[in-house]
Amino acid sequence: MDHDILVGALTKLVGPDNILTGKEDLIGYTYNAGGAAPSAVLPAAAVIPETTEQVSGVVRFANENRLPVLVRGQGSGLSVNVIPEQDDSIVICMQAMNEIVVDPGSMTCTAEAGAITSDIKAEAAKHGLFYPPDPASFTFTSIGGNVSTDAGGLQCVKYGTTKSYVSGLEVVLPSGEIIHTGGKCIKDVTGYNLTQLFTGAEGTLGVVTKAVLKLIPQPEAKTALLVAFDDLENAATAVVRIMHGGVVPSVMEFMEKTFIEAVEAHTQAGLPKDAAAMLLIELDGEAVTIPAKIGKVRSICSELGMIQFRAAANEEEAEAIWLARRAALPALARVAKGRLGGDPAAPIDRLADVVRTLHGLGEKYGLKVGCQGHAGDGNVHPHFFFDNDEQKALAAQARTEFHEYIISIGGTVSAEHGVGREKAPYLVKQLGRAQVDAMWAVKKALDPNLIMNPGCIFGESDHD
Amino acid sequence: MDHDILVGALTKLVGPDNILTGKEDLIGYTYNAGGAAPSAVLPAAAVIPETTEQVSGVVRFANENRLPVLVRGQGSGLSVNVIPEQDDSIVICMQAMNEIVVDPGSMTCTAEAGAITSDIKAEAAKHGLFYPPDPASFTFTSIGGNVSTDAGGLQCVKYGTTKSYVSGLEVVLPSGEIIHTGGKCIKDVTGYNLTQLFTGAEGTLGVVTKAVLKLIPQPEAKTALLVAFDDLENAATAVVRIMHGGVVPSVMEFMEKTFIEAVEAHTQAGLPKDAAAMLLIELDGEAVTIPAKIGKVRSICSELGMIQFRAAANEEEAEAIWLARRAALPALARVAKGRLGGDPAAPIDRLADVVRTLHGLGEKYGLKVGCQGHAGDGNVHPHFFFDNDEQKALAAQARTEFHEYIISIGGTVSAEHGVGREKAPYLVKQLGRAQVDAMWAVKKALDPNLIMNPGCIFGESDHD
Repeated sequence: MDHDILVGALTKLVGPDNILTGKEDLIGYTYNAGGAAPSAVLPAAAVIPETTEQVSGVVRFANENRLPVLVRGQGSGLSVNVIPEQDDSIVICMQAMNEIVVDPGSMTCTAEAGAITSDIKAEAAKHGLFYPPDPASFTFTSIGGNVSTDAGGLQCVKYGTTKSYVSGLEVVLPSGEIIHTGGKCIKDVTGYNLTQLFTGAEGTLGVVTKAVLKLIPQPEAKTALLVAFDDLENAATAVVRIMHGGVVPSVMEFMEKTFIEAVEAHTQAGLPKDAAAMLLIELDGEAVTIPAKIGKVRSICSELGMIQFRAAANEEEAEAIWLARRAALPALARVAKGRLGGDPAAPIDRLADVVRTLHGLGEKYGLKVGCQGHAGDGNVHPHFFFDNDEQKALAAQARTEFHEYIISIGGTVSAEHGVGREKAPYLVKQLGRAQVDAMWAVKKALDPNLIMNPGCIFGESDHD
Repeated sequence: MDHDILVGALTKLVGPDNILTGKEDLIGYTYNAGGAAPSAVLPAAAVIPETTEQVSGVVRFANENRLPVLVRGQGSGLSVNVIPEQDDSIVICMQAMNEIVVDPGSMTCTAEAGAITSDIKAEAAKHGLFYPPDPASFTFTSIGGNVSTDAGGLQCVKYGTTKSYVSGLEVVLPSGEIIHTGGKCIKDVTGYNLTQLFTGAEGTLGVVTKAVLKLIPQPEAKTALLVAFDDLENAATAVVRIMHGGVVPSVMEFMEKTFIEAVEAHTQAGLPKDAAAMLLIELDGEAVTIPAKIGKVRSICSELGMIQFRAAANEEEAEAIWLARRAALPALARVAKGRLGGDPAAPIDRLADVVRTLHGLGEKYGLKVGCQGHAGDGNVHPHFFFDNDEQKALAAQARTEFHEYIISIGGTVSAEHGVGREKAPYLVKQLGRAQVDAMWAVKKALDPNLIMNPGCIFGESDHD
């Protein structure tokens, strides 16, 4: 399409202050936070709508002219979720639509897509209410992105992922029509669950402009524990036994040797450097239950030969424990120049297998490897380290092999970052051709001109 | 299609012992539990497959020959969910596929569609695990029906509906292809959430043959409370305040005057006959938390002028309280010869409005009305009573008006029974034409020959 006509039409739709067309402005939209190389294709323009009607106008224009539409939150996606790959792509930045309205009566919050997740948590907290999903990036990610990837996080083990809190959506369909799925009712079975279809669809079916989010009461109390084991198997067994034992922690993070060493070198926090693995646990609930919960976890871990057990006596001590968790990724810069990561998950009782397999691949390919993860929900983040291009190529091979292993044990290649473009090659391997065909049929039904985030999820597959 | 050819083909697919073709056998498939008049159309045959491959064969045959397929669990649907309306309909009865396999390691259970919900609960309990969904019919409904309607129940207020526990599905697509969505991972964002699309689709998109269900630890303790108010408004306010107060009850049932009187006449249980409304509450969790929870509920209800507060001192007393709840529907036979019901929901802070509106309609149409419901999740079951055909016609009018009111306040006409054929006329009113068109596009994408449960959800609309 003629560039000036395109820009003219979009300017008319969103106003001259809400469109970016300069190269220096657009280059930021050629990559996401994940570290993959930027796309070689610049978008034609980026628009920053202020209303759902403006979004609708832009999408309708794009659909009529068969132009690709990429919906962008904060660009924090880790799976190459939103980048331009085709000419004349239009980026819709949702950042200006960031209103948050808490409705304490119905225990819901209605947030525009550009609202920052931590702001939603803060607004809910003003009413004594709690929005649990906490992707590691929650201080800067937008809820539209969280909804579109069904973002996970640390507290999912007890509270579930973003999808468990999405009770309704405002969506601009590829036709430009605006629909409102679900709503403020806790129970609602009128028609298909489009709310959950758009949740996690990574912007390939429409534009999520607003979300109705379920809120719950704030837990009364919480505490943090650090437990170390000199045996990986025992740490993994502890995870399952704790989950079964009736104590569902609100956080149960896992770190193995590579991480413990890197974090200790980085922070000198006194971590058990001789440990094979460490669990960082948060227990929450009524204050009166906390001592018994701590006792139960201690007793389970004791039976399994723990070598260190630290219970935070106060908030400062708890903070010191979480510092170790937050330092994990920055500390990895000490291990090697670069790394390839991932976000697979397996059934929770396969944790030890998963870690052993990762280390086996490290040996096979002569690479440093390590993992940390949300052990309580089976979501492990593997890391394949490299210092040069040759190692990087081997790391890519090792990761592919690891993902295939994950699929073979009934796991999933993406637990919380989305398929994006990065994991598209695994789609048919994991789901089977018939299922991917069914997904593609749904995609074509809702987006017949295939304008929404082309290349995402399905990749450059053999689909029409 | 020639009847003998049809029967011959199906017999070959499922075996001669697994097909019913006699009129006396088939008549049972012309109605569901909801009390609507039987369909005038008999199905051509009912098959009782033993394997997913047999289901696949039957569906493939039906699809090739454009024959309607109706999937039947226990026929307990309350919204005319599954009845034949077209010639040559094939009923697939899932009752012979009822295997239940608990996998304690991953805290999941894999159940075939015909498995009875209470059997799943019992199998899970053998491993100290808990499958929470409890539709009132859980002792006789099958999990396939529960999944296909996203069945609710009493404990949803704390634990969520069936959909919160469906982590994966085996589905026979209308093409006959077998897919496996999701799995045993707690977190999984690989591709569209087809698991949740098929959940609640009422058999219109494919045949659910197996479900992977998430299990949680059994709560340690529970108790029951009965609280009565002489003012409806105060009872409704108590519901919201309890929910906000950090005590999320595992059950919070509501009954108003009509029900209290009918149940008392039926059971002589000593219910407060002068009460305007009554809450029946279950509190569960760690044993040590129960007294404080009871105290909090009592204090909230006290401030709101409760006129009776009864806390069960033991299991027998708790059982007496639940007897009142279970006696509610049978007791209604005393009120009138017949009644029209429903399962709408509203945001939880609208409960008092909803009950007042219901009584207003009773006055307007000169009908006895009453309601009980799952107050903690806004799901109210209204009842419009009638003793003759004239009143029945008025009851239908009043119910329509009530449903329209529910839609106007952001509620839903179906919270837990499904749309079926009964609520199809409200689909566009509640969801809007664009949203229903999107649902229909999904329907056509997955079931292009429109063989799956025709007439359900979309009704005899103007869709092609």
